[in-house]
Amino acid sequence: MSLLVQKFGGTSVGTVERIKAVAEKVAAFRQQGHDIVVAVSAMSGETNRLIALSEGIATPREMDVLVSTGEQVTISLLSMALNTLGCPAVSYTGSQVRILTDSAHTKARIKRIDEGNIRADLAEGKVVVVAGFQGTDEAGNITTLGRGGSDTTAVALAAALKADECQIYTDVDGVYTTDPRVVASAQRLDRITFEEMLEMASLGSKVLQIRAVEFAGKYNVPLRVLHSFQDGPGTLICLEEKTTMEAPAISGIAFNRDEAKLTVLGVPDIPGVAYKILGPISEANIEVDVIVQNVADDKTTDLTFTVHRNDMKRAATILEATASELGAREVKTDDKIAKLSLVGVGMRSHAGIASQMFRALADVSINILLITTSEIKISVVVDEKFLELGVRALHTAFGLDAESAAESTGE
Amino acid sequence: MSLLVQKFGGTSVGTVERIKAVAEKVAAFRQQGHDIVVAVSAMSGETNRLIALSEGIATPREMDVLVSTGEQVTISLLSMALNTLGCPAVSYTGSQVRILTDSAHTKARIKRIDEGNIRADLAEGKVVVVAGFQGTDEAGNITTLGRGGSDTTAVALAAALKADECQIYTDVDGVYTTDPRVVASAQRLDRITFEEMLEMASLGSKVLQIRAVEFAGKYNVPLRVLHSFQDGPGTLICLEEKTTMEAPAISGIAFNRDEAKLTVLGVPDIPGVAYKILGPISEANIEVDVIVQNVADDKTTDLTFTVHRNDMKRAATILEATASELGAREVKTDDKIAKLSLVGVGMRSHAGIASQMFRALADVSINILLITTSEIKISVVVDEKFLELGVRALHTAFGLDAESAAESTGE
Repeated sequence: MSLLVQKFGGTSVGTVERIKAVAEKVAAFRQQGHDIVVAVSAMSGETNRLIALSEGIATPREMDVLVSTGEQVTISLLSMALNTLGCPAVSYTGSQVRILTDSAHTKARIKRIDEGNIRADLAEGKVVVVAGFQGTDEAGNITTLGRGGSDTTAVALAAALKADECQIYTDVDGVYTTDPRVVASAQRLDRITFEEMLEMASLGSKVLQIRAVEFAGKYNVPLRVLHSFQDGPGTLICLEEKTTMEAPAISGIAFNRDEAKLTVLGVPDIPGVAYKILGPISEANIEVDVIVQNVADDKTTDLTFTVHRNDMKRAATILEATASELGAREVKTDDKIAKLSLVGVGMRSHAGIASQMFRALADVSINILLITTSEIKISVVVDEKFLELGVRALHTAFGLDAESAAESTGE
Repeated sequence: MSLLVQKFGGTSVGTVERIKAVAEKVAAFRQQGHDIVVAVSAMSGETNRLIALSEGIATPREMDVLVSTGEQVTISLLSMALNTLGCPAVSYTGSQVRILTDSAHTKARIKRIDEGNIRADLAEGKVVVVAGFQGTDEAGNITTLGRGGSDTTAVALAAALKADECQIYTDVDGVYTTDPRVVASAQRLDRITFEEMLEMASLGSKVLQIRAVEFAGKYNVPLRVLHSFQDGPGTLICLEEKTTMEAPAISGIAFNRDEAKLTVLGVPDIPGVAYKILGPISEANIEVDVIVQNVADDKTTDLTFTVHRNDMKRAATILEATASELGAREVKTDDKIAKLSLVGVGMRSHAGIASQMFRALADVSINILLITTSEIKISVVVDEKFLELGVRALHTAFGLDAESAAESTGE
């Protein structure tokens, strides 16, 4: 008998019929003897409807009062549906729990969860249904965690209750070695570490909120990604990969094509030059991803960085000004790029992963424009048109192809 | 400078545009230097929409969690609209105030209001916007006061804060001597006592919730009924009528045609017979209004009572059984009746009001079927078809016609 925290998002509770289906699922777990806490989002579309009402008059404190009604509707309906199935359930708003946050309205952070009331209800055999995405500050004001915050609520509840598992129900049946729309032979991973999941998430696998994964890693809450309406084991995200004899070096291949690359050539190679170039970019609230600096000759250097494509023009204008100030030779931009990343805690102990990667790309004649590495990730930037080809080549080269799929394609 | 509690119902806040109009009205009062607490209902239609979602699965505790979101949406939007007008405002749910109630979900009663936070916000010059209709029990569960409970919230807030006036904004500009749709010369009353208002309300003048008027009377909270979007003094409901030399005996004429009359004839006239007849009716949850008993001859009596028309058939079935048990002669029913009532604290000290009433009805040839009296009310039941004629005759006989209207109709 375990204590499980289960999170259902807006699509999973998008209609009263779906809420009833979720209730059946939850009741079945309860029937098996598990203690269950459920965290839910607002019914899909509801948050947008509420935000539309406040158009032109929105203020942060009252916005939280307004949008927090969305989850409140869901918790009441799900609790009713569970009670109707003969499964005793009780709802809690964030304030009722109380999920204590700071006072940063519309983007609050959780400080503490008083879990006493929930424990008492669990002890009485009740399913506890908690409104995701919301809390209360010390003064009793309603706060929200910002969009997508229901994952964070679920993980925070699991951490506070020392739950055996935090299950995130989604519209996919797990985390894959890469995007199955690009590589047909992509495989669902049984397990992945928090670190790997963070790299996968930040590189475009939008299964989970990054903040929730960080939170889960920090408090070592085993997270499982599952499909809301299909059975299956999903993917477990946990502290360390199961050590087996043949632990694979690579867990998956992430990619994105949202970025653009900016290069400033022939900058005087003096201390503080990187700060002089990137400081104004960051002051303009433009997020920088990859940063690569190479020495070009004795006196000058080249610096390249990537930003979101939407920010490229703004970044270029700022960079032109900085470049002429520093006496740099030239500024180049390119928004036809893609980033491919190998992710895996296994690469820490396996030499030669990088060279294996570069060789696999060379074998299909892909030119590498930039390279960056971290402990569990190697990323390369290539011409956008090589994205699919590159991902497939790497997927095969690192042995990630599902066997049946590999057989069917004759490999 | 006064402390005012202002209540706006669902129609007054039915759209975002109307909420903005209410905000302008409230801001204008604040501009005049008054301290303002506003109690609001859910936007019209919202409560029904929420109830519809819960069809077939509703449970009382969760129903309160669900429907209380309706007022929460209104308080946030009204506070936003006030802030946007430069009028500082802050919203409170019932739990945030805290409006402490008993735990009778969907029909809770207010036990106490903690007014400390509201006072602090008023002292800072803020308008305080409170969700009507809702509260919290000792354990922190969300409760609601039942439909129409926002009037009660407003009065309770006014009592707790010792407000100078509780203003109920509605879709009428005050309380009238009778229904202006029946008598064109009906006049708006400047003042009326709580007792009179109770008699008027319970007899079909649906301007205010009875419970709110009782509450206001108990705590002596001056209540004023006003039009939401038209200027005017409205009607003040207060403890005792202003004593003038010529205080009118009658404040108004109430009526209804929702009732049916049941008579049991020839019942043995022995102690406990009224209980034997009415006990089973009340056990069936049928509300009885008028009860009249007359001695018919030495050994038997006749008993007549009225119930809501919708309950007549059920009541008749029960009464038939009782009648045959008691050996009564006959049961008669009639649902083509109307009740007319004169209401006025002045009649306490004026003899002859009753005979003046009966004469006025006789003058237009209306036969009286039943008569009941109380300290400040005389009611007669007549054939339904005489309702309008009777109301007009009484309105004129007791000098309630507006002069201009009287002139224009040549009276």
